[in-house]
Amino acid sequence: MKASRIERLISALQDTEFSLLALNPGASLTYLTGLNFHRMERPIVLWIGVDGKIAVTLPTLEIAKLSLAPMDIKAFPYSDDPQTWQKAFQEAARYLNFRQAVIGVEPNNLRVLEYRFLESAFPEARFHNADHILSPIRMIKEEGEVAAMCKAVQIAQSALQATLPIIKPGVTEKEVASELTIQLLRAGSHPQLPFYPIVASGPNSANPHAVPSDRALKAGDFLVIDWGALYDGYCSDLTRTFSIGDIDPELEKVYSLVEKANENGILAVQPGKTAGSVDQAARRVIQAGGFGEFFTHRTGHGLGMEAHEPPYLYQENDQPLLPGMTFTIEPGIYLPEKGGVRIEDNVLVTDSGRECLTNLPRCLQKLG
Amino acid sequence: MKASRIERLISALQDTEFSLLALNPGASLTYLTGLNFHRMERPIVLWIGVDGKIAVTLPTLEIAKLSLAPMDIKAFPYSDDPQTWQKAFQEAARYLNFRQAVIGVEPNNLRVLEYRFLESAFPEARFHNADHILSPIRMIKEEGEVAAMCKAVQIAQSALQATLPIIKPGVTEKEVASELTIQLLRAGSHPQLPFYPIVASGPNSANPHAVPSDRALKAGDFLVIDWGALYDGYCSDLTRTFSIGDIDPELEKVYSLVEKANENGILAVQPGKTAGSVDQAARRVIQAGGFGEFFTHRTGHGLGMEAHEPPYLYQENDQPLLPGMTFTIEPGIYLPEKGGVRIEDNVLVTDSGRECLTNLPRCLQKLG
Repeated sequence: MKASRIERLISALQDTEFSLLALNPGASLTYLTGLNFHRMERPIVLWIGVDGKIAVTLPTLEIAKLSLAPMDIKAFPYSDDPQTWQKAFQEAARYLNFRQAVIGVEPNNLRVLEYRFLESAFPEARFHNADHILSPIRMIKEEGEVAAMCKAVQIAQSALQATLPIIKPGVTEKEVASELTIQLLRAGSHPQLPFYPIVASGPNSANPHAVPSDRALKAGDFLVIDWGALYDGYCSDLTRTFSIGDIDPELEKVYSLVEKANENGILAVQPGKTAGSVDQAARRVIQAGGFGEFFTHRTGHGLGMEAHEPPYLYQENDQPLLPGMTFTIEPGIYLPEKGGVRIEDNVLVTDSGRECLTNLPRCLQKLG
Repeated sequence: MKASRIERLISALQDTEFSLLALNPGASLTYLTGLNFHRMERPIVLWIGVDGKIAVTLPTLEIAKLSLAPMDIKAFPYSDDPQTWQKAFQEAARYLNFRQAVIGVEPNNLRVLEYRFLESAFPEARFHNADHILSPIRMIKEEGEVAAMCKAVQIAQSALQATLPIIKPGVTEKEVASELTIQLLRAGSHPQLPFYPIVASGPNSANPHAVPSDRALKAGDFLVIDWGALYDGYCSDLTRTFSIGDIDPELEKVYSLVEKANENGILAVQPGKTAGSVDQAARRVIQAGGFGEFFTHRTGHGLGMEAHEPPYLYQENDQPLLPGMTFTIEPGIYLPEKGGVRIEDNVLVTDSGRECLTNLPRCLQKLG
């Protein structure tokens, strides 16, 4: 399966400006080869030529991993002395034998570390963003990928349900996050979670990317929990917002708006519509309710091997939705110092509309 | 405390070519400001000027975090539409008001994503590696940093001890890794582990960076466990190798050599000696025993906020050791298809020699 992905990529390269792609460790490299490398202080680059040559520059101690790949990969290893690294890149360049090439890279992944080595190994080359070649392949999920995501959703949902009983006034955000993490592992998530859970209560919930703190939950709080699991290399990413005891009627109203925006966003998903139109469908509800300025982020992001990947659901994005795309729908309203609400689901575009992969209740649940 | 770090950095900048540092999310940014940002698809750059100006380009939804920093940071926010990002970088550049500057960056951290924005915002600037400014500050640990590392060691050691009882023939590598991860959290590690445990048995242990598999342990195996905890932002990183039942006498000999190499490496740590001399002290033992070619990596790496950071202990490194540096000592021997051994400890350079922060037994323990 992996071999056919790389073949598809190589055939997609034929009609482009690219002679060569240079990928460092990350989701695309793993997607194409099945190999996992760390992105650390030692630069690793996988080379894929339009002529079908596949090579890798890597530390000697990583060579054993290459036998796990379902294709031949020519290795150009180097030692732990950084003085030897440039030579390994130059040898790879000689083998690949492209000079005035346009080389495709992933700007969100490639670091200046690798980039400097690429520049010296290919002094006459130009380096261009290759996202528009890789994304269309990775965005359309195969059946096996969707199955892994469904399992990641299931794990995340069970883990939350196993965590709810400990949530009550007096418990801290960190304690909830820690218990939820343990439950994610017990439920079968890979321990390398797609991201560490966000558990944000009271005023902290007004910060969409809050880090769990020592704040103890108390009555009247909103409690935002944003969490996900990793299964077989694929992510889930959910958010639910709870109330601790009774809350202010203004906050209840805010909750209803977000609930309605989430529903509208999900229903707007249709093949052929744009990513932007889904954002607009969710945003319209919040704007009409008078809270537009407090919905400070896009409606969602693609989800798959990475917790954030294309397509991104922001207003201006005219990317058409296609069957097989998977992404989050996660409108929110954040009232500084008062609290915030976000409700996040994971959606698959189907031939006829959408399938919502997540099914935990979306209505306001009172805890504690 | 954080404010004084950034003041120290700014005063160190006075004597350099740099007018400005541009840091993206990662350990140095957190070290200097106490702030944690994700390194995701939205570029975030913290700017530190030699004139004392501090600014940040970031998504609007992250602005709330800035109030946690113990210094004033001028924000240049942008929206979720990528078309707006360049403008935020240009506005920051105008505020910072350096033109033909040399701008310091961290090549191991900065991505081509941010780099392209930097280049357009500062078209007349040159971008140079600033590791030699940041590393000397970060390499020398403060008392509080060492205390956090000691706690991270303690957590890792307790977690392993709590995991040992489940290790016996028939249990898989993944099951051991999963239990160890849960025990790390129960013992108090931050859930964002410095790295996911390596649990490698039998022939898999010959791969220094093996990923836990479904292989079941069996008698005669070496079992390499490489794990660490994160506490208050600081890492521990240990390795122990066990035997499952009785093992081949050749493997026992290999174990003894690695044990001796580890001891020799630790004893070689002295302020004023070089990082390379520690590698040589460990390597000499393995070479004399006839297994030099199977010790395929350096003897160790710096440890602190990052699981791998300077100083790196490779043969050729003439970096002098200084009191306050912390690093691993982890010689290994890897016999393809037979198995591997690695014994890894965490060491602090003191005024008079070294202190070993880890103290789990290093002799060969038989399990199962």
